[in-house]
Amino acid sequence: MPEIAFLNSAYMPIEDAKISINDRGFVYGDGVYEVMVAYGGHPFRMHQHLQRLKRSAAEIRLALTSSVEEIERVMMEGIERAGFDDTMVYLQFTRGVAPRKHSFPANTKPTFVATFREKPITSEQTRRDGVNLVTIEDLRWGACFVKSIALLPNVLAYQQAQDSEAFEAILHAADGVVHECSVSNIFFVQDGRIVTPAKTNKNLHGITRRAVLDFANDLDIPTSEEAVQLDAILAADEVFLSGTTFEVLGAVKIDDRNIANGTVGPVTQRVAAHFRLTIEQGRYE
Amino acid sequence: MPEIAFLNSAYMPIEDAKISINDRGFVYGDGVYEVMVAYGGHPFRMHQHLQRLKRSAAEIRLALTSSVEEIERVMMEGIERAGFDDTMVYLQFTRGVAPRKHSFPANTKPTFVATFREKPITSEQTRRDGVNLVTIEDLRWGACFVKSIALLPNVLAYQQAQDSEAFEAILHAADGVVHECSVSNIFFVQDGRIVTPAKTNKNLHGITRRAVLDFANDLDIPTSEEAVQLDAILAADEVFLSGTTFEVLGAVKIDDRNIANGTVGPVTQRVAAHFRLTIEQGRYE
Repeated sequence: MPEIAFLNSAYMPIEDAKISINDRGFVYGDGVYEVMVAYGGHPFRMHQHLQRLKRSAAEIRLALTSSVEEIERVMMEGIERAGFDDTMVYLQFTRGVAPRKHSFPANTKPTFVATFREKPITSEQTRRDGVNLVTIEDLRWGACFVKSIALLPNVLAYQQAQDSEAFEAILHAADGVVHECSVSNIFFVQDGRIVTPAKTNKNLHGITRRAVLDFANDLDIPTSEEAVQLDAILAADEVFLSGTTFEVLGAVKIDDRNIANGTVGPVTQRVAAHFRLTIEQGRYE
Repeated sequence: MPEIAFLNSAYMPIEDAKISINDRGFVYGDGVYEVMVAYGGHPFRMHQHLQRLKRSAAEIRLALTSSVEEIERVMMEGIERAGFDDTMVYLQFTRGVAPRKHSFPANTKPTFVATFREKPITSEQTRRDGVNLVTIEDLRWGACFVKSIALLPNVLAYQQAQDSEAFEAILHAADGVVHECSVSNIFFVQDGRIVTPAKTNKNLHGITRRAVLDFANDLDIPTSEEAVQLDAILAADEVFLSGTTFEVLGAVKIDDRNIANGTVGPVTQRVAAHFRLTIEQGRYE
């Protein structure tokens, strides 16, 4: 089955999709994006993703020329053309093609790229055994709630985690306040309560993060969104991550120290199971 | 005369130079760059620019496959092919083309792009009258000494300046410490001494900044690189900017308040004249 791209007005094999070296995405990281999963053709929480896309674009003053309905149509057709069981949909808008100059170009249409790939598989063993984390000081800019493509600091943090044979990096301020991870939001469990960093300018307001809080509510598990110190996470009963493609994943080590007894805990398992059930029951929004 | 590009191995018209939508420059802002001016075919301080390029690449762990000598050959041939009197050379390296995943791709060759355009003209009137500045809180990441292409925060600050009919934005921390401007370094003159923010992780260590300090030395003007507060700039006798394409440019207003008497000052004029003289005398390194 083919990995395909949509570029501005047409579908094509990904390897045929080319943009100008003058595209402001390439020259400045001047764009925004979203990643969604379509389960059996049904995008999960699509409207929340598309609302966030609109918000990100507005924050960087990028005037989208495609309506939410048009983007939705491009998505649904792409998912069907690609034909995967579960599809990872990537959407990117940039400020378009113009000779390199920092100021916004006049009369330039945004570049709209979408790709349709098979959803990556997270193995059952990884889900059962949990993953390792490292802690890294957060060097990112002051508007991380904007899902911009200027992701170099995230790339460097994620790679640093990989180099330590960890799955992810916990990004924290110099004073120990935890923001999120490089490509995930983070949660911990203490005394039966699920806690996650409150929404600020220094973290992405994840759609899967929101889903986890909703699922906890379904399960009558108390939750809190608050300022979180690294120490609280290191001392937690359980730690887990949320992300669009892997959904919910338990963490068992931070910087080579076990979290509690070093296994994926019962609250994490309940939330993950509820996520699967939600999909199986077809509750996509 | 043509604006031309070099892409990986060949020269072509800029509009023919296309890269994959999977290029990590386009998807992540995962790359570094340099801008240089060649006066009458002679790049100014080329070796300093290329050394900084190497350092930027090393900081983001991007293994350049082109040697400094190869880059230099690409530049010199491009300058000759373009045939402008004064050429603006742009060099960009990204981590190459690979399916979207944050971790560094294995066995992927960097993308090397160079463009050759006519140096933009800064009018004599602008040089004589000086420019306006605005002050903006610096939202950029923690490694601004790396000349990365993840420039969205710079773009937004620069545009905010344009919207206020200013030439540039002074970027400062919440506590008033000044880092630099969005595309320039900043200097002020107090009691005959030229002062500029010391090199930190929060500013680019400009080649033209270095040239200004060298020229001040030539002219026996005392200089200081130190922690600079916004208040000191607002109260200065003179303020000026340095940048590769406009060289040295006096500033006369900040947030609609005159700097001193609101004219380009004598120290600024001496430094700018010395810059011109240096070029006229062919002292390019």
